[in-house]
Amino acid sequence: DIWRLMGMWSIWMFRLPLVRNISELPQDSYGRRGLSHITVAGSVFHGMKEVEVWHQTFAPESHTPIHRHSCEEVFVVLKGSGTLYLASSSHEKYPGKPHEYHIFPNSTFHIPVNDVHQVWNTNEHEDLQMIVIISRPPVKAFIYDDWSMPHTASKLKFPYYWDEECLQAPPKDEL
Amino acid sequence: DIWRLMGMWSIWMFRLPLVRNISELPQDSYGRRGLSHITVAGSVFHGMKEVEVWHQTFAPESHTPIHRHSCEEVFVVLKGSGTLYLASSSHEKYPGKPHEYHIFPNSTFHIPVNDVHQVWNTNEHEDLQMIVIISRPPVKAFIYDDWSMPHTASKLKFPYYWDEECLQAPPKDEL
Ligand SMILES: [Zn+2]
Ligand SMILES: [Zn+2]
Repeated sequence: DIWRLMGMWSIWMFRLPLVRNISELPQDSYGRRGLSHITVAGSVFHGMKEVEVWHQTFAPESHTPIHRHSCEEVFVVLKGSGTLYLASSSHEKYPGKPHEYHIFPNSTFHIPVNDVHQVWNTNEHEDLQMIVIISRPPVKAFIYDDWSMPHTASKLKFPYYWDEECLQAPPKDEL
Repeated sequence: DIWRLMGMWSIWMFRLPLVRNISELPQDSYGRRGLSHITVAGSVFHGMKEVEVWHQTFAPESHTPIHRHSCEEVFVVLKGSGTLYLASSSHEKYPGKPHEYHIFPNSTFHIPVNDVHQVWNTNEHEDLQMIVIISRPPVKAFIYDDWSMPHTASKLKFPYYWDEECLQAPPKDEL
């Protein structure tokens, strides 16, 4: 029937093109100053269930929120440099002063699950360009105003910035 | 006690350095002609549980085996070009003639779960360099001699090439 045909057509449309030019994919700041985000392979648009891949460019002085999540996250730096701030103190009441790590072209790092972290482009002369990989998409992140905010006061941001247009927040017990 | 201290020490050793230079990581062909493989973030060496990231360079005319796996896999092409061969016929008795897709710099594609596939560097003038992401590491792949080999005759390659030195094959019921 017509619905079956529509379903087949939408699956066919969804799977084409299999090979995509990253520079032609939707690119937006999603309201975050200095960010250019591309979902390379994602849960919402590409039906990924276990991994999601982003291509992100941060203009000088721009950065991620201070945040944590229970999924795994791997960064590969393609261009530019910056600073990773990482607090490994999930057993304390608040993140506290983070460790600082220099990140540079062709470097990689992963964030230990639930550690509070932030990535900054601290190089005022160049964009910071990275491939970012997360597990168990779509990402459910808890956001902090600063490093001394108690873990219990951090706020769940779900759907995350780029998933907002297409995802509704589910009932709490689905998280 | 001493074991607790040893445990803390090994965790500390394992986590350093957090930021790694990809060009300084172990790089090897693992017995495959024309391949240069780097595990950027992996199950065996970095304790990843949900995603694994590779940096792979294929010399002209080199390629992956014809294979399938039940994990998700995403490719991001950094440099060079080549051909993706993909057979979407897991419901048939054997893969059959695959579709061919041109892959190029800054392109991305993901492999539908369990579809039989192979990536070739078909550009005789340039290396093909890619970031490869898989879910549920370490990878368990079934390998085919050719596109007309029955699915039931494909052979499990576990541990996979780069995991061989550090992983023992588990009893079958763990797969
Ligand atoms: Zn994060
Ligand atoms: Zn594969």
